[in-house]
Amino acid sequence: MIFGVRVLASAQSGERIAVKRFESGQLFEERKTGFIETWQEFIRFPSVSSDPDNDADCRRCAEWLAAGIAGSGLDARLVETPGKPLVLGERLGKPGRPTILLYGHYDVQPVDPIEEWISPPFSPEIRAGRLFGRGAQDNKGQFTYAWKAIETLLAECEQDISVKVIVEGEEESGSAGIAAVLPDLKSDLRADILLSCDTGTVAPGIPTITLGLRGIAYMTVTVEGPLMDLHSGVHGGKAPNPATELARLLATLHNPDGSIAIDGFYDGVSEPTEDQRVLLAARSFDPRVYERATGVAPVAGESRFSPAERVGFRPSLDINGISSGYCGHGMKTIIPKSASAKISVRLVPGQEPQRVLELLESHLGTHAPRGLILTIAEKGAAGGAVSLDPHSPHAKRAAAILHETTGKQTVFSWCGASIPVISLLSRVSGAEPLLVGFGNDEEDRIHAPNESFSLEQFKDGFRFVASFVAGL
Amino acid sequence: MIFGVRVLASAQSGERIAVKRFESGQLFEERKTGFIETWQEFIRFPSVSSDPDNDADCRRCAEWLAAGIAGSGLDARLVETPGKPLVLGERLGKPGRPTILLYGHYDVQPVDPIEEWISPPFSPEIRAGRLFGRGAQDNKGQFTYAWKAIETLLAECEQDISVKVIVEGEEESGSAGIAAVLPDLKSDLRADILLSCDTGTVAPGIPTITLGLRGIAYMTVTVEGPLMDLHSGVHGGKAPNPATELARLLATLHNPDGSIAIDGFYDGVSEPTEDQRVLLAARSFDPRVYERATGVAPVAGESRFSPAERVGFRPSLDINGISSGYCGHGMKTIIPKSASAKISVRLVPGQEPQRVLELLESHLGTHAPRGLILTIAEKGAAGGAVSLDPHSPHAKRAAAILHETTGKQTVFSWCGASIPVISLLSRVSGAEPLLVGFGNDEEDRIHAPNESFSLEQFKDGFRFVASFVAGL
Repeated sequence: MIFGVRVLASAQSGERIAVKRFESGQLFEERKTGFIETWQEFIRFPSVSSDPDNDADCRRCAEWLAAGIAGSGLDARLVETPGKPLVLGERLGKPGRPTILLYGHYDVQPVDPIEEWISPPFSPEIRAGRLFGRGAQDNKGQFTYAWKAIETLLAECEQDISVKVIVEGEEESGSAGIAAVLPDLKSDLRADILLSCDTGTVAPGIPTITLGLRGIAYMTVTVEGPLMDLHSGVHGGKAPNPATELARLLATLHNPDGSIAIDGFYDGVSEPTEDQRVLLAARSFDPRVYERATGVAPVAGESRFSPAERVGFRPSLDINGISSGYCGHGMKTIIPKSASAKISVRLVPGQEPQRVLELLESHLGTHAPRGLILTIAEKGAAGGAVSLDPHSPHAKRAAAILHETTGKQTVFSWCGASIPVISLLSRVSGAEPLLVGFGNDEEDRIHAPNESFSLEQFKDGFRFVASFVAGL
Repeated sequence: MIFGVRVLASAQSGERIAVKRFESGQLFEERKTGFIETWQEFIRFPSVSSDPDNDADCRRCAEWLAAGIAGSGLDARLVETPGKPLVLGERLGKPGRPTILLYGHYDVQPVDPIEEWISPPFSPEIRAGRLFGRGAQDNKGQFTYAWKAIETLLAECEQDISVKVIVEGEEESGSAGIAAVLPDLKSDLRADILLSCDTGTVAPGIPTITLGLRGIAYMTVTVEGPLMDLHSGVHGGKAPNPATELARLLATLHNPDGSIAIDGFYDGVSEPTEDQRVLLAARSFDPRVYERATGVAPVAGESRFSPAERVGFRPSLDINGISSGYCGHGMKTIIPKSASAKISVRLVPGQEPQRVLELLESHLGTHAPRGLILTIAEKGAAGGAVSLDPHSPHAKRAAAILHETTGKQTVFSWCGASIPVISLLSRVSGAEPLLVGFGNDEEDRIHAPNESFSLEQFKDGFRFVASFVAGL
């Protein structure tokens, strides 16, 4: 299956890069029925990490995954954490070859609003070349192609590779478990390249290496006071209203120019460098395409930056949910006893997540409504931002292989999302992060109803991982 | 049972007022078992008017009530409306006697949050001398004592009274049905006194005549745009966030001094008169008692008025509910596709409900967030404010009878709540409104879980209505 070495030229530097020529497309076609079966089995576990009701499902999913990875020829085991268990796999090949550490997550986002799913979220269904289900892309689909690429190499042609796998179960809910045990796994995880396939392409079919991830921190804020819902006639104009006051509190979080109005929030944040601006400008952003895909024009955020700069290099703050009082049919004229909002912040290099949480909490305390009680809960500072060097040998090799396997020029991008544990995992393992994924923002609907991933995207991912790992 | 005429002195004017001496307490004790059974049967109907799922329950409740009123010796019938049917009853006695029109409502508020009820809302239960259930007070309990007082008079001693009854099924959801058909019922409803027992006492056991009701208008505002919930990492800083923007929009509705920031909102609103201020000041308001009862200090509303003045003479605006995005366990880091809030306004004399709705809608439109779609729904301008004359003969007679039956000085109050149709009903029937009820804000928990009404309150109500109607 290996047809010798092929030499590619780096599009960035013109440098010559030797890679194995590898018939990944043919191997994929031969084995794809099995791949899709595994991918569907994976989705059937309702491994929603944020809901304690799904704890047992998460564990069953981890056990199934460990057995599967063992079946692929790696030593696999579960590692307990204070939260959900980790799945670890290892297969050491010829000494001296670089070790690749593949990171993924087996947990998924909640499925609400459930009524908007065309097929049930945990009953995967293929429609028009796409597999639909919660986690179909994020991250079960993307992890599965990488896992199956390694399995295929081991089975077919590359018994000598050194591969480690770590799959966590709390990526969507803060990565607290993995963060707690990583320091103890230092020697188990030592590697050269930390590969995560949990990112996307800038446009369908355009191979993309992600150079930046934002960090994330979050909390739930609750305003309460009345012992019960109060009659808005008897008490309107006397009793402070938690819903009204929460709205006023949330409205203090942004300035009119779209910047975040928390004192000290931007301390340590740098403006994008010239090099970053040039790479970013190479990638066109069409606001009309964005609006067609999402339904909204890209008008949020700091007005002095472009939309791509805002997502790539600037922090953001979003309200993820608000709940208060009566929201059913018709009217119920009450002063609600409480009101809650979930707030999350995306961070950039220079911002320390724990410090940002403190600033946010202090801002909320300073603006707390009179006569009501403010509480902060579910606080999490999940991970810092990650910034990659596009000029590293591994990045250049990945770019050349992506070009080779897709026939399209590789693009560098900053995606704005977070993979909370990457910065810590890179530090612990000593490995250089490499973020290559095949998600498509405009179609995959990750975190939303009717998440999907196409067989074409899955195949592109498989081909890249197989070709990158072969001959490392 | 009637022991002749007794002459009472008006506490206001010293004037002598002749009333029948009437053993209402003894009659109550003889019949109370049956009263409580009827009251409980009434509560068993889940007649939530705001939820279309309860349409059939509302109709069954109306039919049961019409049959019950017929059983009390009145001609009773249902009158269809565009919404829920009305129950009408009539018994004309000796010509020349004043006709009393008793108004009530058989519908109730929704029961959310259902999990906070100690006993199920539609399974009435007596605990420690109080009957618990949705509608136990508002208005099934208060209507039942008035109905049973009339039934008892007809059965025992006062066959000559002229009584009309109108009970609607949409008081808690805007009174649209009754408002639509009232003009056609002008001759059926002609009366002298419009009695509604849907108000409260200023403190437990202190007889109270309500001199003012606020009007009410409301709407649901929705902000939307994203075609789906968006990933807050990929889109944070690009996509406008409906939850954030709704909070900012709601925060524009009040000024920092607690007044309402809608242009033209206070047009036509008068300051309280000297007479009103004197009557109001006669009634002490202890903020500590209020805080113990409700859990909050009376700090909302316009800071230049006292809490009692704000509820009695000033309009208010409350958010009754907000709903957006993910509100379950843990985090779901999305930009929600939409956000909705229910807003209600309490109005005072001088404010025309339809005009206020237009001003509110125009304010929301002016402050609408950029890049998102604002829609207004469930708009209702249910009724104007009502203001009574404490110096009218009927008010003075009611005050004297309340004093006589309870042994306590009658207090005049302004309750802040709304009975939407009273102003229209008074105009159509030509009757002077008289608002006497025995609710207790601090204990009854109307509109909230574990609504209740004590047997003592019920008895006070029965005794007042029986004594007031006897010898009219």
